[in-house]
Amino acid sequence: MRLRNVKNKKELLNSSNYVVNNFLECQNKWHSIFKNDYPIYIEIGMGKGKFITENALNNNHINYIGIEKFDSVLALAIKNIPENIPNLKLIRMDALDIDKVFNKEIDKIYLNFSDPWPKKRHHERRLTSDKFLLRYDKIFKNSKLIEMKTDNQELFEYSIESFSLYGYKLFDISLDLQKSDVKDNITTEYEERFIKTNKKIYKLSAKIN
Amino acid sequence: MRLRNVKNKKELLNSSNYVVNNFLECQNKWHSIFKNDYPIYIEIGMGKGKFITENALNNNHINYIGIEKFDSVLALAIKNIPENIPNLKLIRMDALDIDKVFNKEIDKIYLNFSDPWPKKRHHERRLTSDKFLLRYDKIFKNSKLIEMKTDNQELFEYSIESFSLYGYKLFDISLDLQKSDVKDNITTEYEERFIKTNKKIYKLSAKIN
Repeated sequence: MRLRNVKNKKELLNSSNYVVNNFLECQNKWHSIFKNDYPIYIEIGMGKGKFITENALNNNHINYIGIEKFDSVLALAIKNIPENIPNLKLIRMDALDIDKVFNKEIDKIYLNFSDPWPKKRHHERRLTSDKFLLRYDKIFKNSKLIEMKTDNQELFEYSIESFSLYGYKLFDISLDLQKSDVKDNITTEYEERFIKTNKKIYKLSAKIN
Repeated sequence: MRLRNVKNKKELLNSSNYVVNNFLECQNKWHSIFKNDYPIYIEIGMGKGKFITENALNNNHINYIGIEKFDSVLALAIKNIPENIPNLKLIRMDALDIDKVFNKEIDKIYLNFSDPWPKKRHHERRLTSDKFLLRYDKIFKNSKLIEMKTDNQELFEYSIESFSLYGYKLFDISLDLQKSDVKDNITTEYEERFIKTNKKIYKLSAKIN
């Protein structure tokens, strides 16, 4: 995402009810934070927040946590999100730290239009690399479930192989999401742009029971 | 494949040194037929035979068996194949019978541009359906290895899921084979046509160790 500076971003992040700033102290406490035992779904790289907000509004009995690395992006998201959604929290953090923030508390991970890191020497930084799958093992509660969308063909090829060799089973594969008969697809801001230009969007689900 | 009638096809099939007509009596005997212990690779749906012939010519220490359902197609193949390739045999049969013909003798299966059977009620006829994967279990020697190419997006999506849920691990994925950096790709007649029209070709490998 092209980063635009946002004025008063620090104040925005500090004053928002959505943003959990002391996230490093929240491991094992997420259900108390939400004050319920509903499943917790996270989106790593939530961008401007359209996807996770719509999900939260549509599914009252699921808790959502959006994770975003860049404070400018998260500040933009906060500006867009309606007030008082009880089942939504946001964290500004690097995904590298994810296993310090959650401990067997997560039911599902969304990876939407993640950075493709095209250079071979950067492949380990991909959110679907072995290194990250290993981290996810520590944060998933029981079974593991990841849903991924991307417009990047090479990242999608890599991810099929990475998930599969790690032991995930793949299902709900689409090589052209807009032309598939998938119902209730909640789009991201990125995705909306791709739909307008007829760019192909790839999707998969991966699980370990 | 559009079927063209071939004159004298029965005579062609009967007189060719490549065609094994008593294939139902050959279970457990394929290594004796080839007179060696080299691995045996089969192509189910060999069409006009370009792919399997080039493979056989390039790899002397692998035995190849091409399987084709239609006698007209196999007759055309025979006309095209050069004489005296010792590591090549052909069978005219329906793939449904494959586990009556081989018993733990096969090292690798190639599925190139298989019939996509687009209607849902015909999906079981796909060569990558559960029903066929179950048959392949009986013919693979030790580990299982399948290489698949297709131009059909929906068959490819289905096959990723089918292989994965069955327990196969997927690797060497390409969603656009011509633009991938895959070396030594041996093409089929179909594939040559698609390359000329810039149609995308999908490829995967699937294994169970």
